[in-house]
Amino acid sequence: MQRFLARAVVVGDSAGTVVPDAVLDVAEGEIRWVGPAADAPPAPDAEIVELRGVLMPGLVNTHSHAPMVLFRGQAEGLPLDRWLSEVIWPREGRLIPEDVEVAMTAASAEMLCNGVTTSVEMYFSPERIAAAVTATGARALIATPLLPLPGLPSLEDQLRDAVELAAQTPTGGRVEYGIGPHAAYTLPLPLLAKAAAAAREHNLLLHLHVAETATEGDELLERHGLSVPALLASHDVLGGRVLAAHCVHLDEGDLELWQEYDVAVAHCPASNAKLASGVAPLRAMLDRGIRVGLGTDGPASNDALDLLADARLAAQLARLAAADATALSAAEALWLATGAAADAIGRPDLGRLTPGRQADLVHVDSRSLLMEPVGDATDVLTHLVWSGASRLVRDIWVAGRQVVRDGVCTTVDAEALRADVAARAARLARS
Amino acid sequence: MQRFLARAVVVGDSAGTVVPDAVLDVAEGEIRWVGPAADAPPAPDAEIVELRGVLMPGLVNTHSHAPMVLFRGQAEGLPLDRWLSEVIWPREGRLIPEDVEVAMTAASAEMLCNGVTTSVEMYFSPERIAAAVTATGARALIATPLLPLPGLPSLEDQLRDAVELAAQTPTGGRVEYGIGPHAAYTLPLPLLAKAAAAAREHNLLLHLHVAETATEGDELLERHGLSVPALLASHDVLGGRVLAAHCVHLDEGDLELWQEYDVAVAHCPASNAKLASGVAPLRAMLDRGIRVGLGTDGPASNDALDLLADARLAAQLARLAAADATALSAAEALWLATGAAADAIGRPDLGRLTPGRQADLVHVDSRSLLMEPVGDATDVLTHLVWSGASRLVRDIWVAGRQVVRDGVCTTVDAEALRADVAARAARLARS
Repeated sequence: MQRFLARAVVVGDSAGTVVPDAVLDVAEGEIRWVGPAADAPPAPDAEIVELRGVLMPGLVNTHSHAPMVLFRGQAEGLPLDRWLSEVIWPREGRLIPEDVEVAMTAASAEMLCNGVTTSVEMYFSPERIAAAVTATGARALIATPLLPLPGLPSLEDQLRDAVELAAQTPTGGRVEYGIGPHAAYTLPLPLLAKAAAAAREHNLLLHLHVAETATEGDELLERHGLSVPALLASHDVLGGRVLAAHCVHLDEGDLELWQEYDVAVAHCPASNAKLASGVAPLRAMLDRGIRVGLGTDGPASNDALDLLADARLAAQLARLAAADATALSAAEALWLATGAAADAIGRPDLGRLTPGRQADLVHVDSRSLLMEPVGDATDVLTHLVWSGASRLVRDIWVAGRQVVRDGVCTTVDAEALRADVAARAARLARS
Repeated sequence: MQRFLARAVVVGDSAGTVVPDAVLDVAEGEIRWVGPAADAPPAPDAEIVELRGVLMPGLVNTHSHAPMVLFRGQAEGLPLDRWLSEVIWPREGRLIPEDVEVAMTAASAEMLCNGVTTSVEMYFSPERIAAAVTATGARALIATPLLPLPGLPSLEDQLRDAVELAAQTPTGGRVEYGIGPHAAYTLPLPLLAKAAAAAREHNLLLHLHVAETATEGDELLERHGLSVPALLASHDVLGGRVLAAHCVHLDEGDLELWQEYDVAVAHCPASNAKLASGVAPLRAMLDRGIRVGLGTDGPASNDALDLLADARLAAQLARLAAADATALSAAEALWLATGAAADAIGRPDLGRLTPGRQADLVHVDSRSLLMEPVGDATDVLTHLVWSGASRLVRDIWVAGRQVVRDGVCTTVDAEALRADVAARAARLARS
């Protein structure tokens, strides 16, 4: 058994529970006990890990296309349509699977160093993404994308392959597969229905984009007279482990459907801001009990892959939208990146530091002015969110195995990866 | 002479000029030459400083109350009125000048490590703020606050003292004083007029808060029938080096007045978001040619003192407000923290890396995945803004003197300061 001693443990629940002067025991990759050091049970044989700082749960990124670090910041400032058609799609057309694996490895290490231990990925070459996170030691829930692109197999074949791939790997592990039909405006509705049925049959995550921009559903609305959520409901796509990314433009009726079908939302405020897509109705979703977790989206639309920074942005935008500084607290913002995010992806074994859950631990150095003052225990949580604490992440354990030590991801050679990503990005940029 | 060799020099102008493979020469604290290494004049006697990364101008923070690190994050989530009356004001009532000096020293070192070499400060004990930045090696433009608080001298005496203090120190140096009448809603208009006249007479910065919240001018509007800007104009407060913080709630007529009187704006998007004050009309101000620079505001309302993060937020909010991803480019966002900010505070000798200006230099490590890929030179600038590059700041020079080396502020003992700030904050919190 390992016994971690920390200045405080931030649990990652909706109440914002913080345990000062805490002990956290880990065995076989799971948390066995958490509480005040004064109440800890005797553990004469435990290996003691004495930490200077604060332990928080490994952050859970509910929506990402992390291999797009290959395109980070490219042609910033172009309007979305030109950016996609002139910059992103031509480069993606030249991708080889090895590009995805190298880029995902680099991005996974970067996310780990920001405290993100789990990400939901939707990108080409899903087995390469799995290989990358297997190498870094992170977790990923990989939603194999279904997309009608030239050069790809038929959508029926893509779905069959995605289900086969998912069936080979048990759910609930460090790598898990789901199904990622891109969106209602890019795919035929019968295919979405088939994908949803397959996901329900195998208890897989069904991950798709919904209502990212104001106009993406216009054609469907005209043709069917229904909003995208209503259309998805009418075609039996909802129900099961459905995770809808963005959900910026939902009306009250759409939110009611989300409640009725227990659809979870991947809220991506930074990407929605950079692309000027809008601000999702976060407070309204939470008030209805809709499961919401934070997502970075890909680094081409949110360059930093820094989920704690996005938690701050979520609070900033929710407060501005409500014109109320109490509209979203620091505790809720952190919960959206931890416990709530784990619930949103259907993995309640993650995201909270309580007994029985996976030992995905982030050690944040609290010997920084950014983490002062600490008048009461909740100040620790406040500083994590508002002070940009991702830069203070020192050590990470995933399922009890240390993968970041003193700010460095020990499972990869970051400098070699950087150079490799740069060289591949240069090759992909050449027409 | 010192000759700096850098992967790129980011100039800090509105065009977003980047010089790849650059040389920058410094002598007597000033920049003497900047350009491509291939074109550099011979300099056989120069001391060569070979940098791995990118040089950008020292960032200029146009609005700060940095000693409030003593209150960082305290009682987060209270509504503004209760937060001020129950948390901030009682603590400020117990402040001693030494608290301000210690806190400012710590905060100044923190800002330096984020690439901020100059800040406009408005807080009690201005001489102590000056002593602090003299110690750290940063620059400050200290607007001595005028505030009607119990225990302080009369406003007339405060103004006299502020002018005397400013007169003792020449403008344009590493420490410069200005006058900081708090706001039109807290001070008598005749006093504001006198302060403005004194500022004009001595060419001092006049720094005040304007239209931070929607309702702060309601009483004045009712009494005088004029908006706060119109009231300031009618009382001869505008004209000269006027820097108005926030300016969230300005209508077209107010913006016209700002144009007419060349009033500069300290735009504080992070503070305005955390306190739910609103979003200032940044694009409209820039389109009118109003001088705007970015400000953090104090760390009680924007905990991180990270101006590069605020540049990103400014771009995010401007894009959301316009529903247009091209509404504010990365180049403009960085300019708002560099050249434009220097212009806004009336210090055009700062904020740009061109010959004749002060050698305030920030070296950002570009051997990070966050700074890749670099397809063309402007990608460097994009990454600085969008990737949260403050964590990559390695070295800083102010007027040619190095004050940060390999991420560590060499002029202070950061750990001793952290402990000192924590102890003082605890004392101030005790009623």
